[in-house]
Amino acid sequence: MSASQTPPLHSTRICIIGLGLMGGSLALALKPHAGRLTAVDTDEATRQQALAQGIVDEVMDDVASGVGEADLVVLATPVSAILDIIAALPGWRRKGCMVLDLGSTKQEICAAMDSLPPSFGAMGGHPMCGKETSGLARAEADLYRDQTFVLCRTARTDAGTESLVLTLLRAAGARALFLQPEEHDRLVAMVSHLPYFLSALLMQQAADAGERERELWSVSASGFRDTARLSGSSAHMLKDIVRTNRSAILRALERHADDLEALIALLESGDDETLGDWLRARQQEYERYRRARANRR
Amino acid sequence: MSASQTPPLHSTRICIIGLGLMGGSLALALKPHAGRLTAVDTDEATRQQALAQGIVDEVMDDVASGVGEADLVVLATPVSAILDIIAALPGWRRKGCMVLDLGSTKQEICAAMDSLPPSFGAMGGHPMCGKETSGLARAEADLYRDQTFVLCRTARTDAGTESLVLTLLRAAGARALFLQPEEHDRLVAMVSHLPYFLSALLMQQAADAGERERELWSVSASGFRDTARLSGSSAHMLKDIVRTNRSAILRALERHADDLEALIALLESGDDETLGDWLRARQQEYERYRRARANRR
Repeated sequence: MSASQTPPLHSTRICIIGLGLMGGSLALALKPHAGRLTAVDTDEATRQQALAQGIVDEVMDDVASGVGEADLVVLATPVSAILDIIAALPGWRRKGCMVLDLGSTKQEICAAMDSLPPSFGAMGGHPMCGKETSGLARAEADLYRDQTFVLCRTARTDAGTESLVLTLLRAAGARALFLQPEEHDRLVAMVSHLPYFLSALLMQQAADAGERERELWSVSASGFRDTARLSGSSAHMLKDIVRTNRSAILRALERHADDLEALIALLESGDDETLGDWLRARQQEYERYRRARANRR
Repeated sequence: MSASQTPPLHSTRICIIGLGLMGGSLALALKPHAGRLTAVDTDEATRQQALAQGIVDEVMDDVASGVGEADLVVLATPVSAILDIIAALPGWRRKGCMVLDLGSTKQEICAAMDSLPPSFGAMGGHPMCGKETSGLARAEADLYRDQTFVLCRTARTDAGTESLVLTLLRAAGARALFLQPEEHDRLVAMVSHLPYFLSALLMQQAADAGERERELWSVSASGFRDTARLSGSSAHMLKDIVRTNRSAILRALERHADDLEALIALLESGDDETLGDWLRARQQEYERYRRARANRR
C-alpha cells in the first residue's frame, strides 16, 4: 500500500516497536480503535504480558517481521534504536510504509526520515508525557490524554501520513503541536533535559551526603521527592538524548552555571534586599508559568 | 502555670501565632483535641476565615494578647518573626509559659530559646511537610499525618514541655525525630534548601527563555512542573532561611557548582561510556532513595 492511500484507523495495520511505557500506553490507547495491532519487543516477559493482557493482537521479537506486514510502524524505542530501524527500513519494505516515531529528540530522526525513499510516508513525533519509571507494567491507556504531542513534518510527510497520524493522536486523546525539529530540540533542552540534569545533580549530592548522614532521608519530604524524581529516568534513554542534543543541553547547563555563580555571589555578599528581590522574582515567574499552564486546559 | 506542671492536651490553652499553611493545618489537626485554641494573625481576612470556619475558638491581631493567656504558644511564622517573638516573650509572660516553634531553621531559634528565663519551657520544632503554596486556604488537617516532625531540645526543654509537645505531635499524627539544631540545619540545607534553589534557578532560566520561545510552556510537561514546583515557595520565608542558614546553603551550592562543572566537562568530552556510567549511577541512587522512603512507612 502506498502512503498516499491512507486507510482509516480501524482498517490500518499498526505495529508498535518497543512496548515500554510509551509504546505500551499507546497500544492500550489504540487497541479499541486500530484494525490489527501488533508489537515488537526484545524482552520475553514483556511480550508474554502484552499477549496475556490482550494489549495487542500479536507480538514478535524481531523488528523485520513486525515491520513486514504493517501499514503504519510506530517507533517507540530510545533514539539510537529508532535511527537504526529507520536506516534498515528500505531493506525490509521495498514498497514503503508509513512511519511515526516517539523519540525524545527530533533533528537526527527527522533527518533520517528525510533520507527514506519516496515510497515511505514518515513523520517525527514526541509525546510530552511520561514518568520517571519505565516498562509495560506502568503503561496507562490515558497517558497521552490532554497532553501535547509534538509533530515534526519531514521531507517524507505526505498528506495521507499526516492525516492518519492526526487520527491516531485523536484516538489517544493527545493534542498535536507542529514544530520544526530544531525548535523542538531547543525547547526540550530547556524544559525536559535541563530539569533532568538538575534533578540528577541533586540526587548525586544528596546520595553522597546520605552515606554520612544517618537521618538525611528521614528529613527529606515532598519537596525533595518531587525535585529528585527525574533522576530516576532511564539512563539508556538519557544517553541517547545527550548524543543527539548535546549542544543545546550544554548551552542550558552553561547558562545554569552562570546563574548559579551569580546566586552564590549574591548569598555571599549578604545583600539580603537584593536577595529578597531575586526570591520574589522566582515566585512571580512560577505564578506566571502556573497560570499559563492552567490556561492551556 | 509553670512549665513543669503539664496539663493534658484537652485542658491546655494553645495559641498558634501565624495562621498560614503550617499554623492553619496544625489548628485544624488540634481542634478536636485541644482545650481552648486561639490564634494570632496580622491578616484580617485570615482571622475572619478562621473564625467563620470554626478553626479556632478566638482570633487576635496582636501577639502579646494571644501569648497572654496561653499555656502553650506555637510559633508558626517565618523565622525572623519567631526570633522577634521569643525575644519579647519574657516581657509579656513574667511567669513563663511553654513554647514550640515550627521554623524552617533551628540553630538561631534554639539559641534564642536557650536564653529564655528558666520559667519558660521551650522546644524547637520543624515539621518536614508543606507545599509550594501558602496561606490558611490551603491548610489541611492531615498535612502532618505520617510526616517527620523534627524536634530540637534546648536548655529550656523540661520533661513537662517535652511530654506535651509529643502529645501534640501524636494528635496531629506526626512522627517525632530528635535532632541537634546544627544537624537539622545541615540536613535541610541539602534536602530542602538546595532543591529550592535548583528549582528557582530552573525557573529563572525557563522564564527567560519563555520570553522568546512562544511554545515553551506548551512543550513543558510533568517533569518540568515537578522540578519547578518549589520555585513558587514564599520569598519571605526563603529570605529568613538564607539569613539563618547561609553557610550550609553556600556549601551545598558550591558543591553543586563543582558537580556541574564536572558534568559539563563530561558532556563536552564526548566520552559517552563514562556518561552512561554517570547516568546509571543517578538512576541507582534514585532507586535506593525510593526504597529508603518506602521502608520508612
